[in-house]
Amino acid sequence: MSEFDLIIHGGTVATAADTSGCDIGVKGGKIVALADHLAGASRKIDARGKIVTPGGIDGHCHIAQLTANGVWSADDFKSGSLSAVFGGTTTIIPFAAQNHGESLRQVVDAYHKSADGQSIIDYAFHLIVSDPTPQVLGQELPALIRNGYTSLKVYLTYAARKLTDHQMLDVLAVARREGALVMVHAENNDAIEWLTERLLEAGKTEPKYMPLAHTMATEREATHRAITLAEIADVPILIVHVSGREAAEQVAWGRNKGLKIFAETCPQYLFLTEDDFDKEHFHGAKFMCSPPPRDKANQEVIWRGLQNGLFHIVSSDHAPYRFDKTGKMFNGDNPPFPKVPNGIPGLETRMPLLFSAGVSEGRISLNEFVALTSTNVAKLYGLYPRKGTIAIGSDADLVVWDPERRVTIDNALLHHNVDYTPYEGITVRGWPDIVISRGDIVCDHGKLTAPHGRGVFLPCERSSLAGSVGHGAVGAG
Amino acid sequence: MSEFDLIIHGGTVATAADTSGCDIGVKGGKIVALADHLAGASRKIDARGKIVTPGGIDGHCHIAQLTANGVWSADDFKSGSLSAVFGGTTTIIPFAAQNHGESLRQVVDAYHKSADGQSIIDYAFHLIVSDPTPQVLGQELPALIRNGYTSLKVYLTYAARKLTDHQMLDVLAVARREGALVMVHAENNDAIEWLTERLLEAGKTEPKYMPLAHTMATEREATHRAITLAEIADVPILIVHVSGREAAEQVAWGRNKGLKIFAETCPQYLFLTEDDFDKEHFHGAKFMCSPPPRDKANQEVIWRGLQNGLFHIVSSDHAPYRFDKTGKMFNGDNPPFPKVPNGIPGLETRMPLLFSAGVSEGRISLNEFVALTSTNVAKLYGLYPRKGTIAIGSDADLVVWDPERRVTIDNALLHHNVDYTPYEGITVRGWPDIVISRGDIVCDHGKLTAPHGRGVFLPCERSSLAGSVGHGAVGAG
Amino acid sequence: MSEFDLIIHGGTVATAADTSGCDIGVKGGKIVALADHLAGASRKIDARGKIVTPGGIDGHCHIAQLTANGVWSADDFKSGSLSAVFGGTTTIIPFAAQNHGESLRQVVDAYHKSADGQSIIDYAFHLIVSDPTPQVLGQELPALIRNGYTSLKVYLTYAARKLTDHQMLDVLAVARREGALVMVHAENNDAIEWLTERLLEAGKTEPKYMPLAHTMATEREATHRAITLAEIADVPILIVHVSGREAAEQVAWGRNKGLKIFAETCPQYLFLTEDDFDKEHFHGAKFMCSPPPRDKANQEVIWRGLQNGLFHIVSSDHAPYRFDKTGKMFNGDNPPFPKVPNGIPGLETRMPLLFSAGVSEGRISLNEFVALTSTNVAKLYGLYPRKGTIAIGSDADLVVWDPERRVTIDNALLHHNVDYTPYEGITVRGWPDIVISRGDIVCDHGKLTAPHGRGVFLPCERSSLAGSVGHGAVGAG
Amino acid sequence: MSEFDLIIHGGTVATAADTSGCDIGVKGGKIVALADHLAGASRKIDARGKIVTPGGIDGHCHIAQLTANGVWSADDFKSGSLSAVFGGTTTIIPFAAQNHGESLRQVVDAYHKSADGQSIIDYAFHLIVSDPTPQVLGQELPALIRNGYTSLKVYLTYAARKLTDHQMLDVLAVARREGALVMVHAENNDAIEWLTERLLEAGKTEPKYMPLAHTMATEREATHRAITLAEIADVPILIVHVSGREAAEQVAWGRNKGLKIFAETCPQYLFLTEDDFDKEHFHGAKFMCSPPPRDKANQEVIWRGLQNGLFHIVSSDHAPYRFDKTGKMFNGDNPPFPKVPNGIPGLETRMPLLFSAGVSEGRISLNEFVALTSTNVAKLYGLYPRKGTIAIGSDADLVVWDPERRVTIDNALLHHNVDYTPYEGITVRGWPDIVISRGDIVCDHGKLTAPHGRGVFLPCERSSLAGSVGHGAVGAG
Repeated sequence: MSEFDLIIHGGTVATAADTSGCDIGVKGGKIVALADHLAGASRKIDARGKIVTPGGIDGHCHIAQLTANGVWSADDFKSGSLSAVFGGTTTIIPFAAQNHGESLRQVVDAYHKSADGQSIIDYAFHLIVSDPTPQVLGQELPALIRNGYTSLKVYLTYAARKLTDHQMLDVLAVARREGALVMVHAENNDAIEWLTERLLEAGKTEPKYMPLAHTMATEREATHRAITLAEIADVPILIVHVSGREAAEQVAWGRNKGLKIFAETCPQYLFLTEDDFDKEHFHGAKFMCSPPPRDKANQEVIWRGLQNGLFHIVSSDHAPYRFDKTGKMFNGDNPPFPKVPNGIPGLETRMPLLFSAGVSEGRISLNEFVALTSTNVAKLYGLYPRKGTIAIGSDADLVVWDPERRVTIDNALLHHNVDYTPYEGITVRGWPDIVISRGDIVCDHGKLTAPHGRGVFLPCERSSLAGSVGHGAVGAG
Repeated sequence: MSEFDLIIHGGTVATAADTSGCDIGVKGGKIVALADHLAGASRKIDARGKIVTPGGIDGHCHIAQLTANGVWSADDFKSGSLSAVFGGTTTIIPFAAQNHGESLRQVVDAYHKSADGQSIIDYAFHLIVSDPTPQVLGQELPALIRNGYTSLKVYLTYAARKLTDHQMLDVLAVARREGALVMVHAENNDAIEWLTERLLEAGKTEPKYMPLAHTMATEREATHRAITLAEIADVPILIVHVSGREAAEQVAWGRNKGLKIFAETCPQYLFLTEDDFDKEHFHGAKFMCSPPPRDKANQEVIWRGLQNGLFHIVSSDHAPYRFDKTGKMFNGDNPPFPKVPNGIPGLETRMPLLFSAGVSEGRISLNEFVALTSTNVAKLYGLYPRKGTIAIGSDADLVVWDPERRVTIDNALLHHNVDYTPYEGITVRGWPDIVISRGDIVCDHGKLTAPHGRGVFLPCERSSLAGSVGHGAVGAG
Repeated sequence: MSEFDLIIHGGTVATAADTSGCDIGVKGGKIVALADHLAGASRKIDARGKIVTPGGIDGHCHIAQLTANGVWSADDFKSGSLSAVFGGTTTIIPFAAQNHGESLRQVVDAYHKSADGQSIIDYAFHLIVSDPTPQVLGQELPALIRNGYTSLKVYLTYAARKLTDHQMLDVLAVARREGALVMVHAENNDAIEWLTERLLEAGKTEPKYMPLAHTMATEREATHRAITLAEIADVPILIVHVSGREAAEQVAWGRNKGLKIFAETCPQYLFLTEDDFDKEHFHGAKFMCSPPPRDKANQEVIWRGLQNGLFHIVSSDHAPYRFDKTGKMFNGDNPPFPKVPNGIPGLETRMPLLFSAGVSEGRISLNEFVALTSTNVAKLYGLYPRKGTIAIGSDADLVVWDPERRVTIDNALLHHNVDYTPYEGITVRGWPDIVISRGDIVCDHGKLTAPHGRGVFLPCERSSLAGSVGHGAVGAG
Repeated sequence: MSEFDLIIHGGTVATAADTSGCDIGVKGGKIVALADHLAGASRKIDARGKIVTPGGIDGHCHIAQLTANGVWSADDFKSGSLSAVFGGTTTIIPFAAQNHGESLRQVVDAYHKSADGQSIIDYAFHLIVSDPTPQVLGQELPALIRNGYTSLKVYLTYAARKLTDHQMLDVLAVARREGALVMVHAENNDAIEWLTERLLEAGKTEPKYMPLAHTMATEREATHRAITLAEIADVPILIVHVSGREAAEQVAWGRNKGLKIFAETCPQYLFLTEDDFDKEHFHGAKFMCSPPPRDKANQEVIWRGLQNGLFHIVSSDHAPYRFDKTGKMFNGDNPPFPKVPNGIPGLETRMPLLFSAGVSEGRISLNEFVALTSTNVAKLYGLYPRKGTIAIGSDADLVVWDPERRVTIDNALLHHNVDYTPYEGITVRGWPDIVISRGDIVCDHGKLTAPHGRGVFLPCERSSLAGSVGHGAVGAG
């Protein structure tokens, strides 16, 4: 056997199915050997007493994105990829977001431009489709899907983004024909606007009232509708950021009908509640994301969904806004809640939070953690087997975890370009010691060890989880 | 790197999570290396164009067992292990079955005696508990569980086997305290007997009437009851051989309540229907097992359950009786159906049938096939990671499949000691070329290449799927 | 005791709860006495061997209405009330239908003009709200509700009628504040249009393709959405013309959540199927209504819903179009299905069909028949106790049924202004012998015995079933 | 019109469907006239401002019954009927309870003897079948059912009463063949015994631990099993005293499957909770009945079930034991909970409690109150139309309620032979002023005005709600 560029020695190596003690041999950025003992490398990492997992893949994060109302996300590909790396994430899939009147192809080109030469780690793009013109549906999307942009995101809410049911059916039909997967932000826009009007009329303008406009019923309705449209178009979909029982029940209901409905959740629905919105001096805005976190009972529902297979992936929905005039206060010091940019940072904390509360505290197995944060994401978005596992031939994207290291989350520790974290003060057990991307050590015990710009764009294949076309089984394969 | 005893070269290697092209290096009966290319072995298998999976584990088969009514299962450990091997199964977990008045320890000793020096492949034992005396509950079971018999089977039907609800709670409490997993045969004995009396009164004695006594309602009720008893005792259970929609819905219902309910199904519920019981000249008896197969619509329900995670394992429930005086006709040439031994052979056909209809026909992924037939079985019964996967340190129990080989099932091809197969005439795509047990090639293109007696007893650890005690998540980890 | 104007003697008298043999004494148009024997009337009807029920109330019929696409319903108040009477219906509640840009008050005035002096029987109006302008919401509706128009109908489909979710919430909020009941036509307009486009593109233009555009999924989605909007606005609603399992399950789901969701079905969902649409020479158009009838299995679901309390009322949804240039062929001899006016006649057949298949064939009790066709309608729409029962003080609106009379339905027998009936050839058992309105015999053994114009407008009170405001129980009271 | 024996003048008269202001004319013990104004009676009751309902029928009460463990119920037909009357109940249906080894016919004879000449009001008997011998099944039951004992009660718990599933199927088959209705006490005996053993082992002997043995799961399981056995035998059943969500969900589930499952609940599940069991000095025993009351959330579930039609009847399950050596302390001053006779008094409080919390507080309509406490009971047990309504020809069993009278429940007010009431201190609004049985005023403003012994035995017809045989609809008819 040839020599290796890198050997990770003596760790407990976990995949979505297996846990075994072995050495990992890396060459040319790929995993080329797994064995009880390997030798002959220029570099060797001692992982004894450590856990080695595939690098995290964050399938839902907003980077260098201009929101419809003119606010830039605080992180660009430099700070975003930096933050990702320190949190054990080695692949990010942000969005190329079309605004009304724009050509999707030009949008993609612009996002590539903002990413080129910036990212430490590899990345792909989902396409946000806000304006499905005949040109977009008939020409741009088919070509882009063939070029490796195989996941489309649509919104059922936000005035500037939302599609009509007819437009959504058009997009689903293209997805079916061309082999793309459609991600759906499912909230009923009209109901939220109507409730918001009522709240504002009553002078209820503070952040804590936002969850009263974005109720579980508004999320449930749109989830049911999205599932129905997917049933009519006969194509799988993914419901993103499921927040609690009501939407979760719709996902289970659809799946029991035999529909291929995938679901994502995020750490905010496991660690935060709407009570967090009720902080003085506008600080509640720091927790404002949509749909909002619910309550403790709903956190348990989400945990159960992670345990019993309801959710396939856990993403951050990183939507970074600073607590200042560039972000949460873009529309004033204490604007009414509909004027506050929706979104919270979470790229760096996603993996440690889930490792700690999930694996360290025994709620999910180590293998389930790997599946939810990496393997299933890669399979869902057509990056597998290049990404998402520790197997021969896969990219050597790896995290060496110290399972006993305790860290209290403090924004000063984090590397995003946001001046707060909603998870401030939470102590986690388990932290990434070393993060490796394509065989390169990119982060070593809290030090960045790789340059910006080394990350490459990853064209995506058709989803191997969602399968070819039409509804079928939703399995773990 | 050291030399290997065996290298499997160039195959597509599948685990429950991953599929990759690599070589497998075996030494001392263990998998010691996975790499893009390995060299230096005394023996090398060319697996190019082939699929390599973990060897099958059959978690539900009756071998060398005397039924309560005096009929021996047709297969002993010689013929049973032979049949298993030719079907790609490298571990069997038959039962040590206690009859009333017997000491469980002595039962176990007796079964060991019948297995010693006979089996080609490794084996463990489940304990059938028919008479939970204070001695059994208080002393024998705790000791046996500590000795590696960590799965207990109880029956809610069959006069000679069935426990009262009180006895079942006693057994569940021991399982909880000592860390065992209880498997439940869930049919309502009273209801079946009552319906049988009505049918016999009406002169409806032929095999085709048996499913009218063993209705889905009788299975559903006992499933609900078993789940309730597990809820009360606060311990996981496994419902074995789920046959159709009604019982499946109860499993899903229990799991949605947060209970740790595992479920098994068998090929008979995917390939047979109750119409098969309606054959002339008593030939319907060849399909008689309990619960009986249902109809085509229920087959679809079972497939969906394999696809969406309802079922964790697929077993054969191999209960071999010849179509002669030693078996199906033990009580006469054409006895009324309650006098016919219940059970069908299936040890050898389990893996090819599921590979073909599942993987080759696209109903489940290759990884799901591995999970259902091997990995999850090993995890469920405390044999993982020694058995059930292709990972460094695991036993080199492997099957090299020719995914394109077409075989029409014919009893003459099979190696069990039964004079028929219920699957006669079915053509499958995909067949085991080579079967390997602890690094030994035991079956090579239809030839037995290993001696009887090489198989060893496997003491089982606590279930890693069922976890410690109490209900929690049911996941894939 | 004073003398009576009319005595109905010796009949079996049925209310929604009771069946008893007694005489009914009528004076001044009211029921003033029930007794084992009454005497002293100027007129006496011998009802021995007959069944006496409250007169039917048809809570859903289109009379003298101009559809949005310019087609008039074939029946005006003359022919409509005539047809109603012959079918045992003594109260009709058609619609005053607002088109875009119209004042609701002026619409109501116009409908009153078309009804004045025409109707044989009493009538009320529901208000169809198509254009909920601030003027309509803020002034016209509150005033009209106070004037006795306490039920509002909204559409989620039909381009010219459909409300946005926001508009529907506005209407629901008015209903809540002012004490009105909102009826919802629940089909997803976008999905139907999208499917229609696909069918037309494929050249599938005939009536038989219409159900492929109006699928159960499109009805289910809108039903779920309507329930959600009612939940958000915290007000009861009525889902009209539920066609089958999918929508019915949503109603049950909503009610199990504690929401006050009422549901209506119609004879077409009990007697017709979508197979009826597949008739040569455009004759399928004779069965075209929306949502369309489904299949035999769904008919059973609807019957079960009548039996177990899912449905509170059975209406005709009489939408009469002739099979000629004024109706079904308004847009040509064989236009594509979206160009065919949707709707079928049923005012006259509603009561006999349900009496026969329901009561005579034993599917529902006589009391349930009375509840579904009369009492619950009166309670739901604020006409109780004036209408809908046989109790002291109520209007003497009565039907004397010959429960054994067999009639084969033949359009020549009917009195609507439509040249066909979709129920042609069905033989019913049970037929109205005598129909009485406010003590007047209006129809006697097939002869009209009262003049047009005797019917009066009935201002409606607040619904006594839907209660005050907010969700609460849905009971039978 | 002839003269009347009695006229009730000017009341608001309520049936299960209607509410109207009218006079009621009574002659020969029957209702013979309802009219706006009646005259010519020897006696007249001024009911202006009052509500007149049918007399209550208590379909579940234990009178003059010896429990299996040797304790007599504290009320005989004298005190029992007295208590009933003062609470507005005019018909009682206690049990003739077979013990092991007894002839059912002789049991019935004995109960008749204890009732003869004692009861103030009319009564029927349910048969408790504890020992379904061939003699009982084949001869006694068929004859007794034909003699007017058309309801059978079976137990799935209590050592001395409980039937095996096989025995229950035997009883259900007789019920089906002969047209009887089977009432089921559904709790899993084995599970309760097993849990009780665990509690006693742990020294948990006080009344407050009883609900930990009789959990909702033990009730749910037996409910599911009873439904399954009814499904297998193809015959309707009634689940008595449903206590909370888990059993209620099973009833709804069975009914949704199309099975004819009726359900009863009792005031204890609306007004008490298991917290009441936790009283010092053994006073918790005063609340002990089986199944036990649950918690506030389950009370809401039961209210909802009353509102949406889940429950057909509300009974008292009056099982009177004094808080002394003859009753709760029969086995000592503070015996462990399994030694305490199960049951609480409630015959006299049933109607006022439900009137107050149901009608006065707006949870159910007056008509629903009548249906639940009287009409449906009469229909269910074959006493309709003789009992249960205010209609021509029915027995004049009536209650004149003062809807505004406030009474604080105090055992000193009550007339049962029990020295406490579990409802002590509850203030109700609405109380019976006058109670009439077959035209006789039996209770007038708190004074007994009729002799013991005037009540007669009522042979029951076949249930008109449960219908003939087999499962069908469960409606309100």
